[in-house]
Amino acid sequence: MSSSTAQIGVTGLAVMGRNLARNFARNGYTVALHNRTAARTHDLVAEFGEEGIFVPTETAEEFVAALERPRRLVIMVKAGAATDAVIGEFAPLLEPGDMIVDGGNAHFADTRRREKELREQGIHFVGTGVSGGEEGALHGPSIMPGGSVESYAALGPMLEKISAKAKDGAPCVTHVGPDGAGHFVKMVHNGIEYADMQLIGEAYQLLRDVGGYTPAQIADVFRTWNTGRLDSYLIEITAEVLSHVDAATDRPFVDIVQDRAEQKGTGRWTVQIALDLGVPVSGIAEAVFARSLSGHADLRAASGELAGPRPEPIADTERADFADHVEQALYASKIVSYTQGFHEIAAGSAEYDWDIDLGAVARIWRGGCIIRAAFLDRITAAYEADPGLVSLLSDKGFAEEIAAAQNDWRSVVSTAVTEGVPTPGFAAALAYYDTLRAERLPAALTQGQRDFFGAHTYRRVDREGSFHTLWGGDRSEVEA
Amino acid sequence: MSSSTAQIGVTGLAVMGRNLARNFARNGYTVALHNRTAARTHDLVAEFGEEGIFVPTETAEEFVAALERPRRLVIMVKAGAATDAVIGEFAPLLEPGDMIVDGGNAHFADTRRREKELREQGIHFVGTGVSGGEEGALHGPSIMPGGSVESYAALGPMLEKISAKAKDGAPCVTHVGPDGAGHFVKMVHNGIEYADMQLIGEAYQLLRDVGGYTPAQIADVFRTWNTGRLDSYLIEITAEVLSHVDAATDRPFVDIVQDRAEQKGTGRWTVQIALDLGVPVSGIAEAVFARSLSGHADLRAASGELAGPRPEPIADTERADFADHVEQALYASKIVSYTQGFHEIAAGSAEYDWDIDLGAVARIWRGGCIIRAAFLDRITAAYEADPGLVSLLSDKGFAEEIAAAQNDWRSVVSTAVTEGVPTPGFAAALAYYDTLRAERLPAALTQGQRDFFGAHTYRRVDREGSFHTLWGGDRSEVEA
Repeated sequence: MSSSTAQIGVTGLAVMGRNLARNFARNGYTVALHNRTAARTHDLVAEFGEEGIFVPTETAEEFVAALERPRRLVIMVKAGAATDAVIGEFAPLLEPGDMIVDGGNAHFADTRRREKELREQGIHFVGTGVSGGEEGALHGPSIMPGGSVESYAALGPMLEKISAKAKDGAPCVTHVGPDGAGHFVKMVHNGIEYADMQLIGEAYQLLRDVGGYTPAQIADVFRTWNTGRLDSYLIEITAEVLSHVDAATDRPFVDIVQDRAEQKGTGRWTVQIALDLGVPVSGIAEAVFARSLSGHADLRAASGELAGPRPEPIADTERADFADHVEQALYASKIVSYTQGFHEIAAGSAEYDWDIDLGAVARIWRGGCIIRAAFLDRITAAYEADPGLVSLLSDKGFAEEIAAAQNDWRSVVSTAVTEGVPTPGFAAALAYYDTLRAERLPAALTQGQRDFFGAHTYRRVDREGSFHTLWGGDRSEVEA
Repeated sequence: MSSSTAQIGVTGLAVMGRNLARNFARNGYTVALHNRTAARTHDLVAEFGEEGIFVPTETAEEFVAALERPRRLVIMVKAGAATDAVIGEFAPLLEPGDMIVDGGNAHFADTRRREKELREQGIHFVGTGVSGGEEGALHGPSIMPGGSVESYAALGPMLEKISAKAKDGAPCVTHVGPDGAGHFVKMVHNGIEYADMQLIGEAYQLLRDVGGYTPAQIADVFRTWNTGRLDSYLIEITAEVLSHVDAATDRPFVDIVQDRAEQKGTGRWTVQIALDLGVPVSGIAEAVFARSLSGHADLRAASGELAGPRPEPIADTERADFADHVEQALYASKIVSYTQGFHEIAAGSAEYDWDIDLGAVARIWRGGCIIRAAFLDRITAAYEADPGLVSLLSDKGFAEEIAAAQNDWRSVVSTAVTEGVPTPGFAAALAYYDTLRAERLPAALTQGQRDFFGAHTYRRVDREGSFHTLWGGDRSEVEA
């Protein structure tokens, strides 16, 4: 193989890196390969060499030499210290104008730091969200690149080629924005994914405990939902999981799985960053808390005796109506989750001057990624109709749908509360909705209390300025 | 004044520092004073010099020279960079065995860093929570010191003297634990305070919008509650705020205050750290979110048209019963908030090897601080009866009370949901309770979904090990 022929290089050939490299090769690009242990590189070529043109290399110098200039070098290693180590190894070998693409799940603050450091050497650092798991990496992921406009000009066409395509054929990739914008958006994507999964879980539990359906029947309900406005990958696979029967016990698969959910951290980050930005993301927070609470075996074991109702299944004749109500509750809660998630992206964009196109974010999530859904077309349309939309809830279409759903939504949450079925996600979403609707909030009382115990002052509804009441004195008001 | 006579020194003489210095002097201690601008030092002596023995100083050297050895030096400056600056100024002047006490609202991670750095110089750094505001600082705060056992031996008696005293006469101070333990506990105290205030706000809104009570009548309801198990400072001042009439308009004070709540950050930290520790603190999170949502004027303005019920006040004859139900809901939700807060303290203590005595924490919150309440006696008793208590909810007494409250609690949340009154705190607390009670959670479905899209594996209820189903293949199960 002659040198400097590869249009792109991938270092880090675990399953995600390997599949991404194959995806590039299958799309006609010459792909340089590198891995800390060379065996993996040679295995890839041995196993998949016929899929395209690979340039296996053994050393960092060989790898860099194999790349056309400006070089495009993709890092696919575990986020964190490994990313810094790999950058430290390759950056000294690169030249101004070269690009390093980090396709791991980095924290956007790390991406901002790395981008800044490399920019000083003239190297473009492109922190990129990649969603869709192993299969997505191979067949077409949703790709969320940050970084400079210049780097996107050089990388964009290649990413568009290997990315997933939405039903209308549009590639699921866009230039999200500068420095950490891509990894930020990927983080919120994952947070929304947590919320979606929690809401689906609550719907399942209600259909089972109150609706009296079996898992197989619930799978059918989800299959029906999947033909409507809830059409999405997560609803589709929920039906697959629920209809699966465990071969060893002949019981529903969902009943033999331990009910202790795990998590990797991006959901937690989404909530932590939202708190920094002052964005309420109660739906995502409840999803993260629900997972961690499910894992606290000691607390749960100590709470088995706590008093409360055990839900009684409703009559068979009422089931279908109940399932319809649950669909309304799920859909309305989902609108609220996405409202909160997009609010966080808008706030991050404002905070870091990213100028993110929210409609484009929804557009590139329509294919390849875990939260892909027909619903995202609606969000894209809402932001295209009004790019300055303050909140998804202020879109006329969503407001109308939620108006139509809200009676059933209330009835479902009320039933859950009465029957003792936990629905933290449905309830938090409804409380968010009702908080936004409220003419007056008890926040006025909060401000009064704060002024009482800490002289924190308050504002008046009828005059400008800050005020303090002399609570310990004659209770007259002074300007602060 | 001869040199080296002061038992304690205070630098930073804004209102908190000034009042703390006066408190020490009033209790018979000789207090060295220092401030960046000496005018404040002299003002203090001019105005309050007769309260005790003060040693005003103008330079760092003079200040340090005025202190008995080992020196006890209290820093009362704005948390953050100012704290580091003051430490940097004084530490070089100190000797091994001297103590620096930071009484600001520092982040416990900063306190851990500072303690470690100063320990290397042989100086004891005592990060200390101080709660109770200006009045508390003067008349007796609740004090939460971290740091070495040795430093507490030298400081404890003085802190016990100036601290608040609970009704049984016990001083509201204890050695919380090493390094950042004191500031950590103060942080959670503030998070619980946020939750308490949110729950009170929800109770107020329900009494007003559903109960049809006026603010003055609600003040009376709170006064009655304050004679029972909800007896607390926050309930007491809520009645004061609600009964206050605005002189300028002759309207209820709570109606002329803008309903946009502010916050300073410790509530947010409490949630962020809880997420790091894997502790669900949904009640505190909803309180923080409710405050920030109230402040998003743009979102609220854009949401005024959203569909939903406007609550209709119930009949006069039903009011008293409704108020009783709201009291049950408030009390039950409060138990859950404290359960979550104490869980966070226990988790922090385990993570950082602090060995915090949870009963002692409840004991020192009984006086001086914002969340002081009769309720804390109960928590102390629960941990004294069983120091290994997994959760407050597993205490027999609390479990019985919540059992008695839960029907009314459910009815109140159901009413709120139906009538469109936002009760994110009540609802989150109830969902937490029902999650803990649940025999099976939808977390099993979550694990199935994660295994489907990401091969994240799952555990089985009937066998040890990790498993993966070949979802894309013949759906057989393999050991992972």
